[in-house]
Amino acid sequence: MSERTGGRLSRRAVITAAAATAGVAATGGALAATQRDGAPPRPSGTVPFHGAHQAGIATPQQQYAFFAAFDLESTDPVKGERLTPAQAAANFQRLMGWWTIAAERITQGHAPGPRPGGRPDVPPDSGIADGLEPSRLTITFGLGPGLFARIGQERQRPRRLEPLPAFRTDRLEAAWSGGELLVQICGDDLQTISRAFRTLRSRAPGVARLRWTQQGFLGRFGDATPRNLFGHKDGTANPRPGDAKFDRAVWSDGADEPAWFSGGTYLVFRKIRMDLPKWDTSSTRTQDETIGRRRDNGAPLSGGHEFSAPDLGKAAPHGGLLVPADSHLALVRNVPMLRRSYNYDYGFQANSQPVADHHDTPGEDHDHGQDMPKHSGGGHAAYDAGTLFCAYLRDPAEFVRVQHKLAESDRLNAFIRHTGSAVFAMPPGARPGKHVAAGLLPS
Amino acid sequence: MSERTGGRLSRRAVITAAAATAGVAATGGALAATQRDGAPPRPSGTVPFHGAHQAGIATPQQQYAFFAAFDLESTDPVKGERLTPAQAAANFQRLMGWWTIAAERITQGHAPGPRPGGRPDVPPDSGIADGLEPSRLTITFGLGPGLFARIGQERQRPRRLEPLPAFRTDRLEAAWSGGELLVQICGDDLQTISRAFRTLRSRAPGVARLRWTQQGFLGRFGDATPRNLFGHKDGTANPRPGDAKFDRAVWSDGADEPAWFSGGTYLVFRKIRMDLPKWDTSSTRTQDETIGRRRDNGAPLSGGHEFSAPDLGKAAPHGGLLVPADSHLALVRNVPMLRRSYNYDYGFQANSQPVADHHDTPGEDHDHGQDMPKHSGGGHAAYDAGTLFCAYLRDPAEFVRVQHKLAESDRLNAFIRHTGSAVFAMPPGARPGKHVAAGLLPS
Repeated sequence: MSERTGGRLSRRAVITAAAATAGVAATGGALAATQRDGAPPRPSGTVPFHGAHQAGIATPQQQYAFFAAFDLESTDPVKGERLTPAQAAANFQRLMGWWTIAAERITQGHAPGPRPGGRPDVPPDSGIADGLEPSRLTITFGLGPGLFARIGQERQRPRRLEPLPAFRTDRLEAAWSGGELLVQICGDDLQTISRAFRTLRSRAPGVARLRWTQQGFLGRFGDATPRNLFGHKDGTANPRPGDAKFDRAVWSDGADEPAWFSGGTYLVFRKIRMDLPKWDTSSTRTQDETIGRRRDNGAPLSGGHEFSAPDLGKAAPHGGLLVPADSHLALVRNVPMLRRSYNYDYGFQANSQPVADHHDTPGEDHDHGQDMPKHSGGGHAAYDAGTLFCAYLRDPAEFVRVQHKLAESDRLNAFIRHTGSAVFAMPPGARPGKHVAAGLLPS
Repeated sequence: MSERTGGRLSRRAVITAAAATAGVAATGGALAATQRDGAPPRPSGTVPFHGAHQAGIATPQQQYAFFAAFDLESTDPVKGERLTPAQAAANFQRLMGWWTIAAERITQGHAPGPRPGGRPDVPPDSGIADGLEPSRLTITFGLGPGLFARIGQERQRPRRLEPLPAFRTDRLEAAWSGGELLVQICGDDLQTISRAFRTLRSRAPGVARLRWTQQGFLGRFGDATPRNLFGHKDGTANPRPGDAKFDRAVWSDGADEPAWFSGGTYLVFRKIRMDLPKWDTSSTRTQDETIGRRRDNGAPLSGGHEFSAPDLGKAAPHGGLLVPADSHLALVRNVPMLRRSYNYDYGFQANSQPVADHHDTPGEDHDHGQDMPKHSGGGHAAYDAGTLFCAYLRDPAEFVRVQHKLAESDRLNAFIRHTGSAVFAMPPGARPGKHVAAGLLPS
């Protein structure tokens, strides 16, 4: 939820520029570019899989996203023996090969191809997307910090890939954090996304195990900047794909990174839970001064319109500053990153219990309209909704720098809690016939 | 997931008939009716709120659904004293009044109006849907069996509203079961749905508490019958809204029900979890003989096309029957109900735990590709996906009769587990100026 100022172009111009430059200028790209222009997305949209960069980052943002983190298996599933780094590397390479083939096929509207080890009498695909268009499906892969030692490739680890430090306000849960491999699936049809994940997951048994999944959505805002669950426009000040500024902020040029990583980027992923009842019962003034912008039109409190640069020194008529120094906007200016976040609303997250064990008496056990349970861990008392914050950037240290500042003084801290966290290196795009991250291992 | 045979019209004809007769023949209805005709749903679609029946039942099915069950508060939130039935009834009436006003406003694209007891400096709405169209939003209310004694209106309880009996194969979890009040929100935009629920929820504190929520989706199949997560078409043999047969199956005519309930129906809601890895590694033959239909085109195994009537006596060339007697299709024929189910894919449902308490070692604790954990209660080891089965019918005993049969012998039992269950009386539609279920209480 950081902000970046200076963009005066409309979101429409931004999206069009993105499509023209981000390797999606073919049929699918042109289509995708027009899809944000007020009209609902066309289900037939296809985003090319191959290119200098992976799709799903600079390509136009779809309505829905599914994120899944996996860890490589550490032991041989048959013999039970610990895998050597060379064995783990072979597993990794096999999995990336399977995943790449499946991803390039289903994003282009084809069947995923045979399941490795699949019996001939078993259908190779779940069939749940039979008759559905790809709906701008993209599948994007990431590599976590722990992967490289595991596969004996510490020397090839992208230099800026480190576990994030602890931040003062973090309330992280292991169940939503970390991971050696990331699969990011975006599209405009939840069923094609569900099918895509199921296809990839079916390649994992014996090689990798699921660690966590997250699912997000955007409203159908068309040409306008999407609103987050605090009702504020989120993403107003993103850099514009196609600008040199965008490229400098997002893509690694390999100058001081391993050569295989050129054209890659990093993803900082944060599950940020929102206390919606607390927010909804706060005054308009509190809400807007917390963000530093007007909710209704997205303009900075210093005046102008959504795309106006904020004037952080402008005095309020009755003293103080129009944009408070500890507002979110004032603290997060000029961070070189692309935000491509999604809202999430998981509803009421009961801890499932068999009927017989459940004490069905009214009491502490139920929802009282506050979304932040007193005990971390949440569960039965909690309604879980918020933001899946996704920042793509050349240097995660930029996120770390700002997040320390935010943890120290952001007014938003009264309304949010970071409950999940992960960082991944996002390899460059695959070339036809090669798998994603093929450059990492000798072939 | 029951089946009903005989319909020879295409789904398109069914939907058009539905729109023409189900009280949605005005602007919004005509619009909604054309939305399944291949084109993506129009975000500007508006479904009328008032009518003989509540919207969201016979009206064309939207892409997404959010179900939330509430229980009335049993004690006074200030004094802590147990509420009398008369006090509970007053609370119920107030809540239904607030909910009805909010629902009729936001489904028609208007602001929800003031929050009861809201401060003037606090925005009355979350603002997250500002700029969004209703996208065929419908809000439908239901009343659970326990409600009527609670509000001292046992005499007005619909005669067929009883808790469902236990079925042999049930593995119900209290966290997903029961409830005195149901809110069903359907639409084509997840953000307008999230906003709608948030609006309704904000009316509940002090009067009702949240019990469970569920969220489902359909793929964008346009004119075709949607596929469930087993890849099979689901809903082929639904009765056609507008037929006398449909009306007899679904709507109560009040003949042997309390007068206020005329034009209402019942909803049987079941959360049915699917073992997707087990299904996906079963042969085409096993899959199709379990359902009794071909996955690819939806035709009964006795031959023909999707809408052909199955021939349950037709012998297979090498002995036995083409449609096995214990296939799902053979067991569920001619059940008078409307199915309007949704798929759900909740991903990997970790039990949230603070990082420090988490044993992050590989082991039993992770996903091994089977979606049915050995211990009921699921949690950390489980991937939760399946069907939110919704049957609307004049007599829940029809469901009970078939479900006992299914529990006894349905081949599908090897692949599914019922983990949530609830039944509700769905009142008739509200008249302008009256709240839903207004006829239940003297005004």
